Amino acid sequence: MTILDKLNQRMTDAGSLVCVGLDTRLDQLPDRFKTSATPLFDFNRWIIDQTHAHIAAFKPNMAFYEAHGTHGLQQLSDTISYLRNNHPTIFTICDAKRGDIGSTNDAYVAAIFDKLGFDAVTLHPYLGREALSPFLARRDRGCIILCRTSNPGAGELQDLRTDEGRSLWQVVADKVAHDWNSNQNCMLVVGATYPDEMRIVRQITGDMPFLVPGIGAQGGDVEAVVKNGLDNTGRGLLISASRSIIYSANPANAAQQLKDEINRYRG
Amino acid sequence: MTILDKLNQRMTDAGSLVCVGLDTRLDQLPDRFKTSATPLFDFNRWIIDQTHAHIAAFKPNMAFYEAHGTHGLQQLSDTISYLRNNHPTIFTICDAKRGDIGSTNDAYVAAIFDKLGFDAVTLHPYLGREALSPFLARRDRGCIILCRTSNPGAGELQDLRTDEGRSLWQVVADKVAHDWNSNQNCMLVVGATYPDEMRIVRQITGDMPFLVPGIGAQGGDVEAVVKNGLDNTGRGLLISASRSIIYSANPANAAQQLKDEINRYRG
Repeated sequence: MTILDKLNQRMTDAGSLVCVGLDTRLDQLPDRFKTSATPLFDFNRWIIDQTHAHIAAFKPNMAFYEAHGTHGLQQLSDTISYLRNNHPTIFTICDAKRGDIGSTNDAYVAAIFDKLGFDAVTLHPYLGREALSPFLARRDRGCIILCRTSNPGAGELQDLRTDEGRSLWQVVADKVAHDWNSNQNCMLVVGATYPDEMRIVRQITGDMPFLVPGIGAQGGDVEAVVKNGLDNTGRGLLISASRSIIYSANPANAAQQLKDEINRYRG
Repeated sequence: MTILDKLNQRMTDAGSLVCVGLDTRLDQLPDRFKTSATPLFDFNRWIIDQTHAHIAAFKPNMAFYEAHGTHGLQQLSDTISYLRNNHPTIFTICDAKRGDIGSTNDAYVAAIFDKLGFDAVTLHPYLGREALSPFLARRDRGCIILCRTSNPGAGELQDLRTDEGRSLWQVVADKVAHDWNSNQNCMLVVGATYPDEMRIVRQITGDMPFLVPGIGAQGGDVEAVVKNGLDNTGRGLLISASRSIIYSANPANAAQQLKDEINRYRG
């Protein structure tokens, strides 16, 4: 079973393409968590308990834990341990957007895959396949490469046209799908805010799964994402929402509603 | 005084363009450190004490601390505190190669500039200026953008030619120098292993300082770097070495020798 089989199995078993982003910010937590000694972990555990039945993956973003120093990172570690112990079939993504030279990436592999124990990590493509090889070589873990990001200014570099007439994001999609993925452990980040680009990335990459941020607070449209991004098996999308679920009055409801909305368009 | 004035002043006062990379790996430390409760910090303090007189900057790479979890990050925090308390004029770089959407970068700014207290951070350009604006807006801190990295496979994406005939690394250099640098706080990463490209980046960017990895273990040539990278003031280069200094039998000597070699070619 490859690492992406784990993701696909969970999508099938939960009937869900939803990923919940654990972008947990102290100042946005309900008051009852703020007095805890471990507010980020306590809140995450509550969100996990509320939403796990409706989702395929959880994705904490490292930045929100690093912002609290070692105490924040301990709470991230506790969160992932809680997930692994209680919900081992759920796919776990460390949204860290790493990417350094090879000998340094060895240390990030140790930190994120072995020390913390995540199933997958998000990665920058700028240094090329050779630099990312410590991640790519890990058949048992997923490598989620930034292709077309969800932010408003994504196009500044990503839309550059090469002299072959393709944009940079097309080149990245092509390289990851047809060269970097020899261990069948690659995915791509394709923002929900760019559905036209998503359709083209789907054509380039066959059934490679996409991690899709940009739904909810960032304004991406669920219908356009599903229509343009689904693969031939009716999966291939891990649609991530964070603020619109974890800070909603009823996270369980919000997760279920997003799952149902996605499934309605899956047909 | 801008943040880059701090760097330039230190280069002048120390008569040195050397940056020491604190890429501290437990398995490579001298035996006397391995039994300590805080081996990374104790080793770093020793390296700082040995080498500070010969150098302009220290640059810990976050990966080697994250690899030891919260205990590693505490030792990184202790290292930077030791530096700030004992050598406040030395420029400090967090080599973290971050880069996320804007609202997430706010959290990295809090973590790296405010919680840890570094003068500068290394950043990926792939998401564009808009995403990096939380870093770029901090006039009191430095933003060191990856342009031409030192790794053997750097060219896979960075050498892509745009339809205007420029390579991706040229476009990044141009954007950072002429658009992203409105707060006069930007630098570029330009690897010592690509001196021809460095010459062109110097032409594009005027007197923008470069952080130059790739000397020493990676095989970059000091003479070629100095000839091709120096700016009109005889500075503009922060030449970084890690393994060849911190694991040498005599780190003080190794730092002084690199300083002297660089200064010989500065003429």
